[in-house]
Amino acid sequence: MKILVMGSVALDTVQAPTGSVKDAVGGSAYYFAHGARSLASTAMVSVVGQDFPEQELRDMDELGIDRTGLKVSEGKTFRWEGRYLEDMNVRETLGTELNVLQDFVPFVPEHLRRSRLVFLANMGPETQSAVLEQTKKPWFTACDSMNLWIQHHQDRLLELLRKVDMFFLNDEEARMLTQKTCLVSAGKAVRELGPKWVILKRGEHGSMLFGGGPPFLLPAYPTERVKDPTGAGDSFAGGCLGYLAWRGSVSEEALRLLWLWEVSWLPSRSRSSAPGD
Amino acid sequence: MKILVMGSVALDTVQAPTGSVKDAVGGSAYYFAHGARSLASTAMVSVVGQDFPEQELRDMDELGIDRTGLKVSEGKTFRWEGRYLEDMNVRETLGTELNVLQDFVPFVPEHLRRSRLVFLANMGPETQSAVLEQTKKPWFTACDSMNLWIQHHQDRLLELLRKVDMFFLNDEEARMLTQKTCLVSAGKAVRELGPKWVILKRGEHGSMLFGGGPPFLLPAYPTERVKDPTGAGDSFAGGCLGYLAWRGSVSEEALRLLWLWEVSWLPSRSRSSAPGD
Repeated sequence: MKILVMGSVALDTVQAPTGSVKDAVGGSAYYFAHGARSLASTAMVSVVGQDFPEQELRDMDELGIDRTGLKVSEGKTFRWEGRYLEDMNVRETLGTELNVLQDFVPFVPEHLRRSRLVFLANMGPETQSAVLEQTKKPWFTACDSMNLWIQHHQDRLLELLRKVDMFFLNDEEARMLTQKTCLVSAGKAVRELGPKWVILKRGEHGSMLFGGGPPFLLPAYPTERVKDPTGAGDSFAGGCLGYLAWRGSVSEEALRLLWLWEVSWLPSRSRSSAPGD
Repeated sequence: MKILVMGSVALDTVQAPTGSVKDAVGGSAYYFAHGARSLASTAMVSVVGQDFPEQELRDMDELGIDRTGLKVSEGKTFRWEGRYLEDMNVRETLGTELNVLQDFVPFVPEHLRRSRLVFLANMGPETQSAVLEQTKKPWFTACDSMNLWIQHHQDRLLELLRKVDMFFLNDEEARMLTQKTCLVSAGKAVRELGPKWVILKRGEHGSMLFGGGPPFLLPAYPTERVKDPTGAGDSFAGGCLGYLAWRGSVSEEALRLLWLWEVSWLPSRSRSSAPGD
């Protein structure tokens, strides 16, 4: 089952307490594709400039990511520069150069228009809708967004939300969109805007699923060494949709099992008895 | 399998954005017992003053909580007064009257000394150790603590930690005790101080279990209306130990299953297929 993702491919310059990196390949479509590709055939629609490293394109081919929808335009690749503070949950954007993304009009190649899963990564809601219009009866559609569109293009975003099956957003965005502080209430309110499924991302605190039944919570994988959280949300969405494509069905059961599957791993050495026995 | 809990029984005055209450019965032993008693026979060792409401004592009898170890002393019951801010994760203590708790010397009645599970709720580590010394070969022991003891009686606390099987503490306490910011690292470091099992409590963000295998995370039950979080940690410990007593064994599998048991509930109405099918 093929997944089509539309989003950015970027060159990121990142400062973090753990170190720095300049012009590292990133972007929402890039991270999503890497999260999904081992579970399902993945194709991207995006744009880069002529400065984009050739080797990176060949690496995508080797990973089996279909880049026939990745246009190489005249000009420079989209760039983002940011800094993470000591608490890696907080980041500052130091600079953004839209470059070739400025006039990006997404075009979905003919052979990708019947992709069964479609993910619209963070981008202006009009651009996201334009992709949806080019696809033919996808089986499942999902999108992401950000504070900028919630604040300044909310009408267009609300229009898009009525057309997608699943919406990924973070805690701050959910509060901004619904004016509700409690995340359980906010998640429920987002569902009323259209999407049957809402996944509320909470960084190191995990995520919440809102579907037919009561909200369902998933903790984040615990890790001691966080080097750079850029793209974590897009990779997460890639993993989720990759799993749904691999499984071939979407239901609350499927989405809950995604979790149980992970946590049901029981180390055999711990199957011992009580300390005092 | 009987559980013995030693801790406080208090009269709490609480201000919260949702309302206020004066002299409500509370205290760590009281909350713990209420969390555990439906799963296992529970007995408490504590002290109240002569002002403690008779009706509350009778209510405990009706709930099957053994209060033969709850002494009624001359003087007034321990009182705590606090206020929760808009974000209920933050609270201020407005006042504490130790009263009868001031000279409390715990005495475990003869018939409770062979209790198989022992929980030492938050109290000075010397008082906690004194209870442990009166019990006879408990099968499983657990304790709680607080910042005060970590800062000012750390030697005594460390001594206690070498003797218990499980330690419950919150994120702030774990960081204070280990000087580590990352909670995964902090939890592992706490385990090295003695307890085979460490449960790190994170309020609305759930809890982390450190045992033989990799850390195991549990989200908090999502709720829209939080009225008063006082005693949440003690009730949680009561539920955990009640479950272990009910199950009759302690292992990583048992502790993980405690979780799976809860999350594996799948609403039958959601066993439907995909939205596009």
